[in-house]
Amino acid sequence: MPLPVRRIGFGGVADADLLREIAVEMPVSVEVGGIGYAVMMATPADLDDYAVGFALSEGLVERADQIERIDIQPIEGGVALRLWLPKAQNDIALDRARRRVSESSCGLCGIENIEEVLRPLPRVAARIATDRAAVARALAALADHQPLGRATGAVHAAAFCSPAGDILCAREDVGRHNALDKLIGALARAGTDPAGGFILLSARCSYELVEKTVRAGCPMLVTISAPTSLAAERAAAAGLTLLALARSDSALLISGDPAL
Amino acid sequence: MPLPVRRIGFGGVADADLLREIAVEMPVSVEVGGIGYAVMMATPADLDDYAVGFALSEGLVERADQIERIDIQPIEGGVALRLWLPKAQNDIALDRARRRVSESSCGLCGIENIEEVLRPLPRVAARIATDRAAVARALAALADHQPLGRATGAVHAAAFCSPAGDILCAREDVGRHNALDKLIGALARAGTDPAGGFILLSARCSYELVEKTVRAGCPMLVTISAPTSLAAERAAAAGLTLLALARSDSALLISGDPAL
Repeated sequence: MPLPVRRIGFGGVADADLLREIAVEMPVSVEVGGIGYAVMMATPADLDDYAVGFALSEGLVERADQIERIDIQPIEGGVALRLWLPKAQNDIALDRARRRVSESSCGLCGIENIEEVLRPLPRVAARIATDRAAVARALAALADHQPLGRATGAVHAAAFCSPAGDILCAREDVGRHNALDKLIGALARAGTDPAGGFILLSARCSYELVEKTVRAGCPMLVTISAPTSLAAERAAAAGLTLLALARSDSALLISGDPAL
Repeated sequence: MPLPVRRIGFGGVADADLLREIAVEMPVSVEVGGIGYAVMMATPADLDDYAVGFALSEGLVERADQIERIDIQPIEGGVALRLWLPKAQNDIALDRARRRVSESSCGLCGIENIEEVLRPLPRVAARIATDRAAVARALAALADHQPLGRATGAVHAAAFCSPAGDILCAREDVGRHNALDKLIGALARAGTDPAGGFILLSARCSYELVEKTVRAGCPMLVTISAPTSLAAERAAAAGLTLLALARSDSALLISGDPAL
């Protein structure tokens, strides 16, 4: 999916308007025998393969040929993936789904679930007076705040930065959502208002990182790696300034003030 | 956490026994008012920050000072993170937890949850006659099977490879677990037994990728990026051959046949 973005250079690279391909991420509501089973965020390609693999990995079936039918249907806000299984397998799935009601509020289709996954976001009220030199500064300093990342190569970092680009606090975790939750918690415990700076993430930008940043009241998010379609949409809708693919020489402005 | 691994070279690099730092990933059982709320896989550092950030991001509290107490306690298989909230906030959390019973089977503590997260894995029965030249070949060919990854920089790929290192099938997704489920589904639909080859993943190796590979009956997993502690443990316990940090010149043997 092509997204118009603005490349902003940090000195050596010129600004430019670009069309950037971004990965599509959307809610996929997996239903078994007509009942909502789970909502997964996924790329809506090869969903027939996904349905079979999901059923196998979840242990709903032992073999692919036990799946009687798969229907794939676009629904409001996402895609419904409907699996039809023999009675014994269906009963296993139903039993699990029943014990997991909150993920399936209507119990009959995936629409309610998807609405629950994509709850309305508040608008970001705060504005931040920062500039691209500050972003470049924070980017250059991030590695110094990733001791675990340097040692293992397997963890993500989330950092809170002043408008001038000083890293004030950083946290690490194997899960990027955990790293961000740790940072938000550390700021709250220190009494630091996230409205007064920007957040820098070593990770790819998926929608839940945008949502956590917005809910924390922070006006700007910078991520090292690429955003997904849903992250871009959610950021624009919430008025969050989102920079992605932030490199030493440039970054892509995905949403927000083009004067940055 | 240091893990003894063997570097296997693909020609230009010598084999060597190394100690490699790997990121610790363990189940964290978040409990609110004594009731299991969720089990998250996380790095067990800064868990006090995590508790506060999780409560804020989940909307359980509006401000950190609404949290009355946080207890962090090692339990069998992981860590319990116990949050104590005022009655109104506690009721919100309890109501959500009740509608999510399957994630909290004992209802009183996180131990059952953690056991459910880490269900026993079967042993891998299949053996594969492959060699490092085949691994290097598959690695070199992976980019040709990642059209979406090349375009967006934001998706993962999972590929099934013959013992000779030919990529027979590949699937992509924003979620690495989804890419692997798609691959497993594609193999099942084509009638290809995963026991007859190895799986190559563009992603970091977290425990659920090991589990999906083992459950699919595939004897060997190769990942481009680093493994977590739990992935290494689960692979060793299941008898899965796991290669990680696979580069053009070498890879690290995390578990499995040292003669590879």
